[in-house]
Amino acid sequence: MSGPLRLYELVLENGRSASPYVWRIRYALAQKQVAYESVMLGFTDIPRTFSGRCKTVPVIEHDGTLISDSWDIAEYLDRTFHTGVKLFSTPAELAMCKLMDAWFAPNVARRMLHVYVLDVHDAAKPEDRAYFRQSREARLQSSLEAVVENRIATLAELREALAPLRTHLRRFPFLGGAAPNYTDYIALGALLWVGSVSTLPLLARDDEVMCAWLERGLELYGGIGRDPRLKPLIE
Amino acid sequence: MSGPLRLYELVLENGRSASPYVWRIRYALAQKQVAYESVMLGFTDIPRTFSGRCKTVPVIEHDGTLISDSWDIAEYLDRTFHTGVKLFSTPAELAMCKLMDAWFAPNVARRMLHVYVLDVHDAAKPEDRAYFRQSREARLQSSLEAVVENRIATLAELREALAPLRTHLRRFPFLGGAAPNYTDYIALGALLWVGSVSTLPLLARDDEVMCAWLERGLELYGGIGRDPRLKPLIE
Repeated sequence: MSGPLRLYELVLENGRSASPYVWRIRYALAQKQVAYESVMLGFTDIPRTFSGRCKTVPVIEHDGTLISDSWDIAEYLDRTFHTGVKLFSTPAELAMCKLMDAWFAPNVARRMLHVYVLDVHDAAKPEDRAYFRQSREARLQSSLEAVVENRIATLAELREALAPLRTHLRRFPFLGGAAPNYTDYIALGALLWVGSVSTLPLLARDDEVMCAWLERGLELYGGIGRDPRLKPLIE
Repeated sequence: MSGPLRLYELVLENGRSASPYVWRIRYALAQKQVAYESVMLGFTDIPRTFSGRCKTVPVIEHDGTLISDSWDIAEYLDRTFHTGVKLFSTPAELAMCKLMDAWFAPNVARRMLHVYVLDVHDAAKPEDRAYFRQSREARLQSSLEAVVENRIATLAELREALAPLRTHLRRFPFLGGAAPNYTDYIALGALLWVGSVSTLPLLARDDEVMCAWLERGLELYGGIGRDPRLKPLIE
C-alpha cells in the first residue's frame, strides 16, 4: 500500500507555484489522477530542506524515496501509478517529448529567461532575492538588469520562435494532437512560470492560435492552471 | 488480395531518387516491410503522368487508388499493411512527428533549399532544368544564383539550426529514441536529398553526433540509403 505522494514546489512572495518544471509535474499528476500534497519552498529553502541532496524542484517524496529531475519523476509516475492516462504511451513518445524539449529549451525557454529574469527576482520572496540575483548573475555572467535591457527585442524573437507551435496548433488542438501530452505541459509550464511573474505580456493579442491553445491548456483537469494571481499572458 | 504497390519517385540525371518526401516513404515502406516497384519520373514527367491530378511525388498507386502527399501515404501504409513495425504507434506519435516537421521545415529544410537549389537544378535531367528554374525562381522570387550567393553563411546557419537534433542524439541513437521513427526519416530524407546533388558538404567533420547518426541512418534496412552516387555529406 503506497503512502501519499508529496510534491515539493517553488513558491514566490504571492504564494504561487512558479517553476516551469514543477508545472510539468503538476499537469502530469493531474493526467495520471494521482493525489498529492504540496510543500511550498522558497529558493533558499530548497538546499536546506534536502540537506543539499536536491538543489532544484520539483522533488517528489513517495514511499520513503526522494526523486528529483522532472523527467525522472514523470517516468516514475508512469511506472508506479496505473491510474489516469499514461504520460508516455510508448518509448517513442517519451523520446519525442525530449526531442521537443531539446528544441524548446534553447529557442523558447532561454529567451523567456532573458525577458523575465528580473521579474522573477522581483516576485521572489524577499529573503530569496539576494540568492536569486547572485546565482543567476553568475550563471548569466551579467547583471539581471543588463540581461533584460533589450527585452522588447528579445520578446519579439521569442514570439517568432513560437512559429513551429503555431503551425502545429493550426492542425491540432494540442501539441500532443487530439489530446494534450507532455509536450503541452512543457510549453504550458513555461507560460505559467512567466505568468507567475510577468510585467510584460508574452503573447500578442492577435496571436489567436497560441492564445486559444493557452486557454485550452488553462482549462485542463478542472482548470489547475487558472489562478487569480496569474499575470496577463496576453497583451 | 492486394496488388503490388507502385511508388512514383523523382529522378535526377544520374538516376538517383532525389525527393526528401519520397525518401520518407522509402524508409516507411522498409519499416513496414512492404515490397514495391519504383517508377522514376523527372520533374516534367510528373504532371503528364498523372494528367495534372498529382503535382508532386511521392505518389503511390495501390489497388487502383492513387495517393499523394507523404503524410497521407504514411497513414495509408499503417492502415493497410500490418507487417513490419507501425509507423505511428499512437495518434500522439503521429502528431509529434508533425510537430517535429513544423520545426524542421522552416528551420532546416528551408535553409537547405537556400544552399542547394542551384545544385538541384544542375543535377536535374537536362529536359527538366528550364521548368525547375522557372518554377523555383517564381516561388523564391529570385534567380537561383542569387538565392545561393551567400550559401556559405546559410550553411553555417543550417548547421547551427541542427542544435536540437544534436542535443537529442547525445542521449539517444535515433530521433525516435532507441529505434528510428518517422522523425528520423524526415531528417534522413532531407540529407539524402542534399546528398543527391550537393557540391558543398553539409556536415562539418567534427560534428560527430550528427555524422554518427547519419551513418546509422544509412545502414538501416539493409543500407537502402547507401549509394555510390551519393555525394559527400560530411566535409
